[in-house]
Amino acid sequence: MGKRNLYLSNTPVDEALSLYMAALQGKIVPGSEIIPVTEALDRITKSAVYAKYCSPLYNAAAMDGIMVIASHTNGASEKKPVELQPDQDYKIVDTGDPIIPPYDAVIMAEDLIESSDGKLRVLASSSPWEHVRPIGEDIVAGEMILPSNHLIRPIDIGVLLSAGILQLEVIKKPRVAIFPTGTEIIEPTEIPKKGDIIESNSRMFENMVTVKGGAAFRFPPIADNYAKIKEKVAAAAKEYDLVIINAGSSAGTEDFTVHVLRELGAVIIHGVAIKPGKPVILALVNDKPVIGLPGYPVSAYIGFQNFVLPVLRLYLDQKASEQETGIEAVISKRIVSSLKYKEYIHVKVGSVGDKIVAAPLARGAGAAMSLVRADGFCVIGQNSEGVEAGEKVRVELYRSLEEIRNTLVIIGSHDLIIDVIADMMPNHYKNMYVSSTHVGSMGGLMALKRGEAHLAPIHLLDEKTGAYNTAYVQQMFGDQVAIIRGVGRVQGFIVKKGNPLDIHTIKDIRKSRYVNRQRGAGTRILFDFMLKQAHMDAAEINGYTNEMTTHMAVAALVQSESADAGLGIQSAAKAMGLDFVPVGLEEYDFAVPKKYLKLDRVKAFLHILKSEAFKEKLTALGGYTSDHLGEIITF
Amino acid sequence: MGKRNLYLSNTPVDEALSLYMAALQGKIVPGSEIIPVTEALDRITKSAVYAKYCSPLYNAAAMDGIMVIASHTNGASEKKPVELQPDQDYKIVDTGDPIIPPYDAVIMAEDLIESSDGKLRVLASSSPWEHVRPIGEDIVAGEMILPSNHLIRPIDIGVLLSAGILQLEVIKKPRVAIFPTGTEIIEPTEIPKKGDIIESNSRMFENMVTVKGGAAFRFPPIADNYAKIKEKVAAAAKEYDLVIINAGSSAGTEDFTVHVLRELGAVIIHGVAIKPGKPVILALVNDKPVIGLPGYPVSAYIGFQNFVLPVLRLYLDQKASEQETGIEAVISKRIVSSLKYKEYIHVKVGSVGDKIVAAPLARGAGAAMSLVRADGFCVIGQNSEGVEAGEKVRVELYRSLEEIRNTLVIIGSHDLIIDVIADMMPNHYKNMYVSSTHVGSMGGLMALKRGEAHLAPIHLLDEKTGAYNTAYVQQMFGDQVAIIRGVGRVQGFIVKKGNPLDIHTIKDIRKSRYVNRQRGAGTRILFDFMLKQAHMDAAEINGYTNEMTTHMAVAALVQSESADAGLGIQSAAKAMGLDFVPVGLEEYDFAVPKKYLKLDRVKAFLHILKSEAFKEKLTALGGYTSDHLGEIITF
Repeated sequence: MGKRNLYLSNTPVDEALSLYMAALQGKIVPGSEIIPVTEALDRITKSAVYAKYCSPLYNAAAMDGIMVIASHTNGASEKKPVELQPDQDYKIVDTGDPIIPPYDAVIMAEDLIESSDGKLRVLASSSPWEHVRPIGEDIVAGEMILPSNHLIRPIDIGVLLSAGILQLEVIKKPRVAIFPTGTEIIEPTEIPKKGDIIESNSRMFENMVTVKGGAAFRFPPIADNYAKIKEKVAAAAKEYDLVIINAGSSAGTEDFTVHVLRELGAVIIHGVAIKPGKPVILALVNDKPVIGLPGYPVSAYIGFQNFVLPVLRLYLDQKASEQETGIEAVISKRIVSSLKYKEYIHVKVGSVGDKIVAAPLARGAGAAMSLVRADGFCVIGQNSEGVEAGEKVRVELYRSLEEIRNTLVIIGSHDLIIDVIADMMPNHYKNMYVSSTHVGSMGGLMALKRGEAHLAPIHLLDEKTGAYNTAYVQQMFGDQVAIIRGVGRVQGFIVKKGNPLDIHTIKDIRKSRYVNRQRGAGTRILFDFMLKQAHMDAAEINGYTNEMTTHMAVAALVQSESADAGLGIQSAAKAMGLDFVPVGLEEYDFAVPKKYLKLDRVKAFLHILKSEAFKEKLTALGGYTSDHLGEIITF
Repeated sequence: MGKRNLYLSNTPVDEALSLYMAALQGKIVPGSEIIPVTEALDRITKSAVYAKYCSPLYNAAAMDGIMVIASHTNGASEKKPVELQPDQDYKIVDTGDPIIPPYDAVIMAEDLIESSDGKLRVLASSSPWEHVRPIGEDIVAGEMILPSNHLIRPIDIGVLLSAGILQLEVIKKPRVAIFPTGTEIIEPTEIPKKGDIIESNSRMFENMVTVKGGAAFRFPPIADNYAKIKEKVAAAAKEYDLVIINAGSSAGTEDFTVHVLRELGAVIIHGVAIKPGKPVILALVNDKPVIGLPGYPVSAYIGFQNFVLPVLRLYLDQKASEQETGIEAVISKRIVSSLKYKEYIHVKVGSVGDKIVAAPLARGAGAAMSLVRADGFCVIGQNSEGVEAGEKVRVELYRSLEEIRNTLVIIGSHDLIIDVIADMMPNHYKNMYVSSTHVGSMGGLMALKRGEAHLAPIHLLDEKTGAYNTAYVQQMFGDQVAIIRGVGRVQGFIVKKGNPLDIHTIKDIRKSRYVNRQRGAGTRILFDFMLKQAHMDAAEINGYTNEMTTHMAVAALVQSESADAGLGIQSAAKAMGLDFVPVGLEEYDFAVPKKYLKLDRVKAFLHILKSEAFKEKLTALGGYTSDHLGEIITF
């Protein structure tokens, strides 16, 4: 079996972090540097900053007008104006001009009367210092302008310069070295071969470090070679403030990282009770923090948030917020969680009726798209076995609540047109968004039932009548839910280019390795219906239990030659350069509770559906009919 | 009077903006450019991005273990383990390794039994695809990864690279030219002479543009010269997307901007009903937006927010949030506002008891420090005459509500030690802050009375007993408010270096130009007490009505030779390099409602007050005694 370290520890997250923080105690000292004020945006002051100059620098005119000697205007009134002599009683000033003794007040231009001979008269007496900004009114030399530990904003830069400050002491950006490792890793610029993994985590880390105020240094991938890894890490721990090693942190045959770190320094933690993200290494080399993060993107992301961020904060002299943040949402699906782990569940969040609903996304450690799609996440504590559907959870949001309130929540069957509409929405209707979750047609109707979606895209064949959608909706909802008619969609077998197995009917599927759709999907119902009509049994189909959740995933499996055939839509076959054997036209419609038809989001959706721009996109995709687009059927 | 354009219009803000937006209609088209994904952080997608590759790229092991042919494990059980032959029944795989036919499943290392002869046995049968991540499980080639108009985050960069995307189309950053103008303007690097104004607005704009996603190009100051300004603006309107001209936008003798813009193009608006910020110019030159902003920093800032930002958003294809944001707060002081203007009031915000309290800051257009100190702002509509103290206002926050909840609100008399403590708080107690507003001692006690402050620093002389503070507090609050003893503070006359007017007693003040403190200030009460004891009258004092609100401001006026003497504290004289004639020691203490003594913020304040570090700072400042620091007097 080769050399493995099967035994990762399963230290609870908080314990792992406090052990590591204790080990780092006194070893991390925030650095400082002097930089020009003009380059100080988003930096943090190391020490308080005191004004060098006053602002204004001198007594200055606060208005456009004339500066006068106030006593010379004594007794002026509407009835008895006082005439003023230039250069004796007054001088013209613009706002900001200095007031020079013996002048001691300003009269606004609007309050002057200019006679035809150019002489000026005033109708009211002026008091000393009137309309004068005294020296230091805004900033007094010696006054504290910014405290220490202050994040510098554009306005601060303006005021610092006004106060004569050209340079200031800020906290140094921690320098973070990032090492991707792995023999199977290739740079994104290379063409991948089978077994290659495109290296992308380091680029994510690089930008996460930047966002948090550090300076990231990303190195080219290192192969799984003990000596090479050791050499690079030893050098980096001298030169950088923090070292991240990506992957090789688990206990596989080629996971050298932990051995290297044990040789070079001390491994404080190897394995944390977190999911995804268990194989984390927290170590010290040359008194510098060295963190090994797992290779799966979601694990890598969660590991970074939980362990790299606190170390960056130490360097930046910041403390994590201790406030409970986030919003309360109703979870739309049961989540089973292990007592062994603190688990991070990424969710889509929608505002439907009076509920804020969180729908769990794919939970795999490799599901990077779940992070892209996520509106936020919730945490299931290590001592919890999970939550039931309908229970309240606290969700940390990645998007603003405002955006979420303007989002049309679509849950149901997947089709490429949903992505197209999701893209068109915010471009045609500013501040309106689409969130879509793919759970199949029945799943969509169940979500409507639970009040968790605005629209459910469905293509449900009524086996009795052979008609689509209406029977299901009417039976489940009576007259409460309407149908917005969508597209006619050609369903057929997605097969390899040239159809080498010569598949034409469902009987031919017996000779293939099939890839199926998940239970509840309209395509699955159609397939089961076809089996029944052909008097065939599921057991005859090799791969019947091999379930994918989207048309594209089915097509991808055929394209990679992991399967020979799958039932799906033409656009998926077309996108993957595969052949397509049509077996029928189905109706892909949208079920919508009647009460939501008046929502702006639903109206915007309808407008897009009926638009010429959308029809053009349908034609480009191919495999759709659009005769009834946007028609509404009520019961 | 020279050439003036006295007549700015007073167009309401919304009307001005919509007239300008109408004039820009069709002239602003968001640009796009293709950039490397690795440089795409914080950019906005111009078009939707579709995956080029699947992820995983192939069927991959989801676990460390062995890949097997599932059918070869049929019938395995604890009682009847199945033995597997290497390279025939299985191959060792690490997570991520490709699954190569005929292998079709993975068994985890943990579920294997290795016999002493190196043979492997399994205790349970495996099903096809178990522990295999099928190709495209996370991302399917052709799938939409990011919609258009999406702000790119670190995680997006990771996923784009995984999906084979190396470059993408993003919205081009609008290029913004910034021209400071004015003959009196100098660069911050120059030594200012009387009449000079340090140019700082352009640096604030530069950074505001950067923060909002534009590319800023700041030019050196141009003198008030019609031909020069015309030449520069004409050239910039060809090369840049947006031109900002700072100052010269009003109607003074040297305000050329509006004339230049009328000659070069069209001036849509000159003068907006906003305060501060009225002299705004909204123009078009060469079909490009050219905006003239006023020179006062607060006006400049508010003009930028109201008029430059909407233009930047057009270029970036973004829409302003329409949601009502901000929090509700109780205003602590009456605000009188003109029906002529929409007025922006910057405020300090504190959480005191069960109230969120907003205290208005200095309202002058030149009060740049009010922006630095502000926790947020509220808007008094053009049709409102203002709000009464205690009324509710909506405050847009610059800081997080969490920070505000952790802030000790100090309102009362000013002393340098307040700044010192404000700086020490967040450094000694993470996430605890001090907000201080200077309204004099009596103003501080009134704020306590209204429940708007936690602490009131006071130095109030009881004219009957000659004792400080206790009499006032007891009379106003009975036993509800305690006193935390602060410092003994030497008060005296701040005079010019060398004391040229030979000032020693209050009688000598008659020969000086005096600078006074505002009514309610402890120093003012002391001065009035001294006058009374000397049987003198306020009318005898030249400058009695010349009121400043801080010790430092008094010292600044003496230093600039605008006044000869003022009563104040030694540290202010020392900070400004002035001489100081002591006239007595006063007690500067902190009144605190007893119920707040148990607050963490107040406890932290007390700890700092008693710390050695603080005493060292007192000694460095000079002029303080510290015999009773932190003692608590209750009644």
